[in-house]
Amino acid sequence: MKTKKPLHIVKIGGNIIDNDAELNQFLVDFNLLDGDKILVHGGGKSASKMAQSLGLEPKMIDGRRITDDKMLEVVVMMYAGWINKSIVAKLQSLKCNAVGLCGADGNSIEAEKRKITTVDYGFVGDITKVNSAFIINILNQNSVPVFSAITHDKNGQLLNTNADTIASELAIALAENFEVSLWYCFEKQGVLSTIEDENSVIEKLDLNLYEQLKSNKNIHSGMIPKLDNSFNSLSKGVQSIKIGHHQMLQKNAQKHTTLVL
Amino acid sequence: MKTKKPLHIVKIGGNIIDNDAELNQFLVDFNLLDGDKILVHGGGKSASKMAQSLGLEPKMIDGRRITDDKMLEVVVMMYAGWINKSIVAKLQSLKCNAVGLCGADGNSIEAEKRKITTVDYGFVGDITKVNSAFIINILNQNSVPVFSAITHDKNGQLLNTNADTIASELAIALAENFEVSLWYCFEKQGVLSTIEDENSVIEKLDLNLYEQLKSNKNIHSGMIPKLDNSFNSLSKGVQSIKIGHHQMLQKNAQKHTTLVL
Repeated sequence: MKTKKPLHIVKIGGNIIDNDAELNQFLVDFNLLDGDKILVHGGGKSASKMAQSLGLEPKMIDGRRITDDKMLEVVVMMYAGWINKSIVAKLQSLKCNAVGLCGADGNSIEAEKRKITTVDYGFVGDITKVNSAFIINILNQNSVPVFSAITHDKNGQLLNTNADTIASELAIALAENFEVSLWYCFEKQGVLSTIEDENSVIEKLDLNLYEQLKSNKNIHSGMIPKLDNSFNSLSKGVQSIKIGHHQMLQKNAQKHTTLVL
Repeated sequence: MKTKKPLHIVKIGGNIIDNDAELNQFLVDFNLLDGDKILVHGGGKSASKMAQSLGLEPKMIDGRRITDDKMLEVVVMMYAGWINKSIVAKLQSLKCNAVGLCGADGNSIEAEKRKITTVDYGFVGDITKVNSAFIINILNQNSVPVFSAITHDKNGQLLNTNADTIASELAIALAENFEVSLWYCFEKQGVLSTIEDENSVIEKLDLNLYEQLKSNKNIHSGMIPKLDNSFNSLSKGVQSIKIGHHQMLQKNAQKHTTLVL
């Protein structure tokens, strides 16, 4: 069997994006990762702030944004526009040949509008397909794709899509061609065994322990889709998944959580 | 000498972008052009409208926007975000494998901040280099680059850049590898010999006639940079330049102006 090249897929969340100094430090660390890499970013509070400046009231149900047509415009312009291109320009200044993309570009990530059940989430996408050939070609030019959390339905509709899910679906699709390490960076040091205790980072989290923590309600609602996604990716060939503060990318990495099946 | 492949570079202006039905028809026509192609778009009135919604007052000097830091954010989010990705999604729905880019992506278009003379235009870029290898690689994947009018300075600064100039600089850089046809689409049928007479379209405009029309003040201020750019591109190896209404892309093309040296 041919040895696969390593590929890092790093997802950063809102807290870094909202803090310029932290974002700059993170991008330096990201750029120092060896080999091929992909960055996936959410949008932080920028979309909500912009919506408020425009007199739109952000609508959330169970921590998920309801994306009506006005909010879709805000999300696309902030995520795929300002935040994405600002990150690309910063990476370029570090001599990292970044290319900012959303799922519509090169038809890289196809999705379908979430079906209306009890809730109509609006223009929210559930990923149906990652077209890895286009992404691999970008990587083969020593370029670094930077994905915003926007996809499309192939019928001209852009869709707001969860950035964690984009990272895990990219990881699964590219695991066929690469040895993929998936990094989820967020504001905590890792998955906590006791929500109130920032030092209770679980170093190795397996499925058994995860089920146990879920049933004890020690893992809160926002973490559950992230971890469900992650275990799903592990079972589908992703080599390694780490969850923690973005400083874990540094060589003398601090505490973080590694997922194992 | 090896025969070069044809490449169409089409620039569309604000009037099409502000009209959904016209934009959709234009994209159908654009998609039907044979061979490799690149689209370059401005932003129409969207950035000014958005700025007004945010309580910013658009500042113009001699028809050029002054881009302060707040306006840069608006321009990047509208041009490289909402407008660019909406066009990409529409082209994808026509089975055209569009890839939305700004000059920071793949370091495709480098610029420098315009020097302050009598006027400080703010974060406005003058193009210094087009890196055609990245763009050619995208074209070689049968993909269609869609450029918004944003560049970068390689030091992390995004810059608002004239879309006509982006089109002509792309045309010049790619003329080494392709037989480039450059199309400038705008709201009129072509260059007019009498400004007030919409039917006075000049079918062939050469440098002599251009100089004559300029000295007679029959060519207005907005057209001068467009035409200066165009004659410059022609003298640097671009094969063909046409100026007219976007309907000129259709097979039974109507009147338009062809530039000749």
